[in-house]
Amino acid sequence: MYQFSEKSQRLQNELLKFMDEFIYPNEKRYATELHNAENRFAPLAIMDELKLKAKERGLWNLFVPEDHGHYSEHGGLSFFDYAPLAETMGRVIWSPEVFNCNAPDTGNMEVFMNFATDAQKEKWLTPLLNGEIRSSYAMTEPQVASSDATNVELSIKREGDEWVLNGRKWFITNAMYERTKIFIVMGKSDPDNASRHLQQTQVLVPKHTPGVTIVRPLTTLGFDDAPIGHAELVFENVRVPYENVLAGEGRGFEIAQSRLGPGRMHHCMRLIGTAQRSLELACKRANSRTTFGRPLSKHQSVREEISRSFSEIEMARLLVLKTCSKIDEQGVMASIDMIAATKTTVPLLVQTVIDRCMQMHGAGGLTEDYMMAEGFNYARWCRQADGPDQVHQMALGKQIIDRYSK
Amino acid sequence: MYQFSEKSQRLQNELLKFMDEFIYPNEKRYATELHNAENRFAPLAIMDELKLKAKERGLWNLFVPEDHGHYSEHGGLSFFDYAPLAETMGRVIWSPEVFNCNAPDTGNMEVFMNFATDAQKEKWLTPLLNGEIRSSYAMTEPQVASSDATNVELSIKREGDEWVLNGRKWFITNAMYERTKIFIVMGKSDPDNASRHLQQTQVLVPKHTPGVTIVRPLTTLGFDDAPIGHAELVFENVRVPYENVLAGEGRGFEIAQSRLGPGRMHHCMRLIGTAQRSLELACKRANSRTTFGRPLSKHQSVREEISRSFSEIEMARLLVLKTCSKIDEQGVMASIDMIAATKTTVPLLVQTVIDRCMQMHGAGGLTEDYMMAEGFNYARWCRQADGPDQVHQMALGKQIIDRYSK
Amino acid sequence: MYQFSEKSQRLQNELLKFMDEFIYPNEKRYATELHNAENRFAPLAIMDELKLKAKERGLWNLFVPEDHGHYSEHGGLSFFDYAPLAETMGRVIWSPEVFNCNAPDTGNMEVFMNFATDAQKEKWLTPLLNGEIRSSYAMTEPQVASSDATNVELSIKREGDEWVLNGRKWFITNAMYERTKIFIVMGKSDPDNASRHLQQTQVLVPKHTPGVTIVRPLTTLGFDDAPIGHAELVFENVRVPYENVLAGEGRGFEIAQSRLGPGRMHHCMRLIGTAQRSLELACKRANSRTTFGRPLSKHQSVREEISRSFSEIEMARLLVLKTCSKIDEQGVMASIDMIAATKTTVPLLVQTVIDRCMQMHGAGGLTEDYMMAEGFNYARWCRQADGPDQVHQMALGKQIIDRYSK
Amino acid sequence: MYQFSEKSQRLQNELLKFMDEFIYPNEKRYATELHNAENRFAPLAIMDELKLKAKERGLWNLFVPEDHGHYSEHGGLSFFDYAPLAETMGRVIWSPEVFNCNAPDTGNMEVFMNFATDAQKEKWLTPLLNGEIRSSYAMTEPQVASSDATNVELSIKREGDEWVLNGRKWFITNAMYERTKIFIVMGKSDPDNASRHLQQTQVLVPKHTPGVTIVRPLTTLGFDDAPIGHAELVFENVRVPYENVLAGEGRGFEIAQSRLGPGRMHHCMRLIGTAQRSLELACKRANSRTTFGRPLSKHQSVREEISRSFSEIEMARLLVLKTCSKIDEQGVMASIDMIAATKTTVPLLVQTVIDRCMQMHGAGGLTEDYMMAEGFNYARWCRQADGPDQVHQMALGKQIIDRYSK
Repeated sequence: MYQFSEKSQRLQNELLKFMDEFIYPNEKRYATELHNAENRFAPLAIMDELKLKAKERGLWNLFVPEDHGHYSEHGGLSFFDYAPLAETMGRVIWSPEVFNCNAPDTGNMEVFMNFATDAQKEKWLTPLLNGEIRSSYAMTEPQVASSDATNVELSIKREGDEWVLNGRKWFITNAMYERTKIFIVMGKSDPDNASRHLQQTQVLVPKHTPGVTIVRPLTTLGFDDAPIGHAELVFENVRVPYENVLAGEGRGFEIAQSRLGPGRMHHCMRLIGTAQRSLELACKRANSRTTFGRPLSKHQSVREEISRSFSEIEMARLLVLKTCSKIDEQGVMASIDMIAATKTTVPLLVQTVIDRCMQMHGAGGLTEDYMMAEGFNYARWCRQADGPDQVHQMALGKQIIDRYSK
Repeated sequence: MYQFSEKSQRLQNELLKFMDEFIYPNEKRYATELHNAENRFAPLAIMDELKLKAKERGLWNLFVPEDHGHYSEHGGLSFFDYAPLAETMGRVIWSPEVFNCNAPDTGNMEVFMNFATDAQKEKWLTPLLNGEIRSSYAMTEPQVASSDATNVELSIKREGDEWVLNGRKWFITNAMYERTKIFIVMGKSDPDNASRHLQQTQVLVPKHTPGVTIVRPLTTLGFDDAPIGHAELVFENVRVPYENVLAGEGRGFEIAQSRLGPGRMHHCMRLIGTAQRSLELACKRANSRTTFGRPLSKHQSVREEISRSFSEIEMARLLVLKTCSKIDEQGVMASIDMIAATKTTVPLLVQTVIDRCMQMHGAGGLTEDYMMAEGFNYARWCRQADGPDQVHQMALGKQIIDRYSK
Repeated sequence: MYQFSEKSQRLQNELLKFMDEFIYPNEKRYATELHNAENRFAPLAIMDELKLKAKERGLWNLFVPEDHGHYSEHGGLSFFDYAPLAETMGRVIWSPEVFNCNAPDTGNMEVFMNFATDAQKEKWLTPLLNGEIRSSYAMTEPQVASSDATNVELSIKREGDEWVLNGRKWFITNAMYERTKIFIVMGKSDPDNASRHLQQTQVLVPKHTPGVTIVRPLTTLGFDDAPIGHAELVFENVRVPYENVLAGEGRGFEIAQSRLGPGRMHHCMRLIGTAQRSLELACKRANSRTTFGRPLSKHQSVREEISRSFSEIEMARLLVLKTCSKIDEQGVMASIDMIAATKTTVPLLVQTVIDRCMQMHGAGGLTEDYMMAEGFNYARWCRQADGPDQVHQMALGKQIIDRYSK
Repeated sequence: MYQFSEKSQRLQNELLKFMDEFIYPNEKRYATELHNAENRFAPLAIMDELKLKAKERGLWNLFVPEDHGHYSEHGGLSFFDYAPLAETMGRVIWSPEVFNCNAPDTGNMEVFMNFATDAQKEKWLTPLLNGEIRSSYAMTEPQVASSDATNVELSIKREGDEWVLNGRKWFITNAMYERTKIFIVMGKSDPDNASRHLQQTQVLVPKHTPGVTIVRPLTTLGFDDAPIGHAELVFENVRVPYENVLAGEGRGFEIAQSRLGPGRMHHCMRLIGTAQRSLELACKRANSRTTFGRPLSKHQSVREEISRSFSEIEMARLLVLKTCSKIDEQGVMASIDMIAATKTTVPLLVQTVIDRCMQMHGAGGLTEDYMMAEGFNYARWCRQADGPDQVHQMALGKQIIDRYSK
């Protein structure tokens, strides 16, 4: 029914080998290093080792899209061709960073590719592409429903040659991470503009600019996602030079729009891998665990749940691929129906699948001994990330009703 | 991501036009004719009219597969290419017969194509392909779990030049229909054969053979599916000539296996259309009905359910297509995993979607004023047809566990 | 935790005996009589026989509430005490009529008790209590969301000593039934009244009044619920004398309010019995049916579903009982939260339970061979009856949010 | 429908006041103390303060059952009377310890009451009742399905006047807690006994006995449940005196049976409170948060989910109460059907309710800013605690099938 390009197939094979050779065998070491870390948000030695290896193998910056192919060795991949690669990385929650393919850096790098000046690119995009620094995208605010990007309230005022920022952000991924050097901050520069979509501006704020305070790391379902983490930030009279504006004053909403659709898809691609690996763990468990004198694998209810999970993962995977394909062919804006369908379906479905797989593992299924608990948390917060599902369902529902009621 | 052949695309366009021109405008007339029929299982005038028109337009025997292309004007279609056509027919429950594409005749015709002698073909397949007669496939028995085809108990004994049949069958679709002339009957000819898969034989039994009694029409959720219907049958010392055997003694199980997978897929293809049309009806309703001062379309819960239904239908459609594509490429036997995944997922999902769509229509949603109630019933009994979902989940679960626990 | 009154317990025992002795053994006969009936909406001989027996045993008009105790031999029962009796009757869909306890007559009789003049009572209530005639409550209209009673559009105009009715109603239960003699019709007599709740009036319209047309019987999921049935009606210049007004002009909304809460509870009480019997059938099936060499009862998935169904029925039953108890203690108006909770929970849950139980029965589970298919339909349409669940959830949700957000 | 005893009602009022006065206002302080703790498993100052206050108010050892009333100031409470108290404590995950009512100490104290010698009681029960020490119940093992208590493998061998223990346990709640002094350890002393239920023995092992190693704290969904915690333990040639046996050799299974049913009920009681508080938080949120120009409370989908959650909590509460009442009247053994129904229904339902409530809170709903994330985790692991739900459904399903298929 469909086929990936030769380039994608070749990279898939390389990646699968890399996972077998370097990622799975290091899961325990990664956990131990993190567990023993004095600062949970410092870089881990294992990560740096693995990044080197991934670079050597040409498994680097796989996310780079076709139209920016020159930023990567492989020359760029379509959404469709990237999907199976991201799926494979999703099998180990921390592995995308190994390939410089982790959120939010991928999305941020794309923002730089699309909207930054040459000077901005040289300063920030180059080290990001090299994996030397990390970045944050500061959009969500605790006080307002940030799923509607026009709601952001952080104030960005121009004063002479500077921008002055005041406000509060939270769920700023990477902000805790020691390696992170730059924040892309969305705020309101022109709150009285008649057009709600021209009131916002995005500026670049180096992490250690005076007035930037990291209030605290945030957890979701008990996970701090260290070392990447999610932070609450306060900006108090933070001053950056005028040239730190991205794309231009009043283009903040436009940048946000262009960034979020693809970001949602990347999460969904990875979540397929998270679910798939959970299913495989459950199958192994079913064959190795005996209760009441029969292996779990012979219990009809276990078989039904495995069967159901297999089918659901397959459907979710196909939905992701079809959406990717539509984006490749028609662009993000024409694909918002399918992006919304995917974003509101895949995380919930993956959460459900993992819930079942954990249950088959007994009490141990909820611990860190498997990747499932963290995967469950990943799926769960994706139902909130980039806007709660309900907001996207509102828009999609409206669009579908219009389509068929004319 | 995928594309249908030009032939399929051309037929899709023709079919859509035909639906608009002849099917939807006649739904009311069809209902009235059936309602006023003295015998609910007699052919309807409207059906015969429409069949003529479909033939004229070349929309006839669309189900014929590529490897039997010479049986149709269009030269045969792959599973994948047929899927969107069957989906479209599924939008009106009774419409497949218009195109000579209704179950169980399609499956029966394929059995004839694959296993019948030339004489058998001439006598039965030719009029079936012409839509002059209809046929039944008598497999399910009330006393045994017939999802395991080896369980059938109807006795088929050879006595000289004849087969003698004794037993009871039910859910024999088409058997009530006046136009039906021939039953393909599965039974046990060699119950002591060491191989459970060689005990069965299938023989051709003309409907009016002495000893065949139609006990009663059966209903599912109150529907009798007239004029096609589902019957309970008794065979008492029913005698047919030896040459009425299909393929040969002991090959009954093999025939059943070859027939059921594709049959399940045809149901699923059509069900996608049934769900899709229900969704479209719900969208129209949402835009036209006002409650508590707002159109339904502005209620957030309505939008969420429309959004959810759209996404689920899309996933189900993709699963059907992928399975079709796998069958085309690797054959039925290699595709039993995907067939099982589809068979156990699509009907339940379609039932759920239609349940929501009916609910948006208020009390009227449950009546015959819409196709939804009948569509709901169709989806519901497909969860039992060709074996309850649980049986297929048992097999699929086992297969998946094996695949990943090695 | 709770105990029924001695009176209720005594009647429960009598009723259980009656079910064993007269109802279950006559289910087949009832089905046959209905099946063979020339007119599906004529009274059945079996029903009249059983009604006589029920009267003899004092199992008559069990629904009569305490505050109208003199209308029954047993002196009236609280909601709480009536609940287990209605549950038992719910085990056989048609059995409530045997005890003169079927909808909508019970609700209509209560309307007469509460709002009718002595003359009206003599003429209509007395034969209703005797089971000699049946009645309809004509409220729902196809054009408007009738769950909001203020929306009804049927026009009731006073002209001299008469009321003149014009409009359309549907889902008018009992209207098809030959034994039905009287309709209580809700309409708008004063559409310009500033208070939306004083615009409505209810008048008594004998079934055979000129201008009343029964357009057609309606079905839900294929069931016509004969002989009681649900009809679509047209009123064209229907004239009735002024004294046929119920309670007084402008009191239509008030009457509707008082009637609907208890009606919903009666449905829920009965549905518990419908679910419970389905569960019992499933248990019997699980023990008697063998698939793949093991009785269904040994399949873990069957046990899980039986366990789940048992728990859900128990919870639903408790919810019904608590709501009944609250109505008894605090009245209907103070209990609308619990009534809404019950009305929006029990039918859906019962539908789900029966769906599972049908599935365990194989294809036969969907036929008329069991009471499950009809019970499924009963549960399904109760999600629409007296207003779709969503309307009640809207009101309950609002009330709960208010309660806890102050 | 039901009424709590005057004693229970009085204690409920006192407890509600205490919650308002001391618990809710200290939630933040508790979180801060724990967050800043050098050792997360050390006692917190705030806890000790609050325990003193609870004792003063007579809100101490509320769990003590009627038949052991002399162990408490209040004289003991039935299960039914204790349920609303435990529900209230469940509103703040850590609050039960304030009232000396936290798991597993309550269950352990009951084991001492029922099975310990006077000397054992003096040494361990008295300080436990005083809240001076804490205890663990070491039953679950990683290698075997411990839901079937006969599976435990830890070896308890008698050597002269001593017992020698060897084996591994996990999910041993409280074991990490510094205040914990005593472990009740279940193991196999007579693996060859013909009766599978006489092979087990329970012995008392002081925490700091040589050979006992705390391997690591375990997390569930990222939560370590500090300071109480769940640990993995190794026993290597651990020696305790013969008199440390509980009840007598071979009575381990019996003790486990008596302990687990009530423990499950206590969890369910508390979970009702956890869900109820989450619902109340969601209501407050719905009224205070505005999205797309309307408060959440006006979105139909929000109202539906609040309505659904209210109804489900009410049903779960009633199920808990009915089960408690049955235990009070007929004992634990006669109530295993209802205990299983409750244990397999309430945690899953509570998980679902909290999932919805978190979702209404946007991204913040998943953080530690609310009690919901921890409550979600509590509900989730209760689906595994004391045996995965599936094991109890297996037993309950079997029992119900037997009941109705005879």
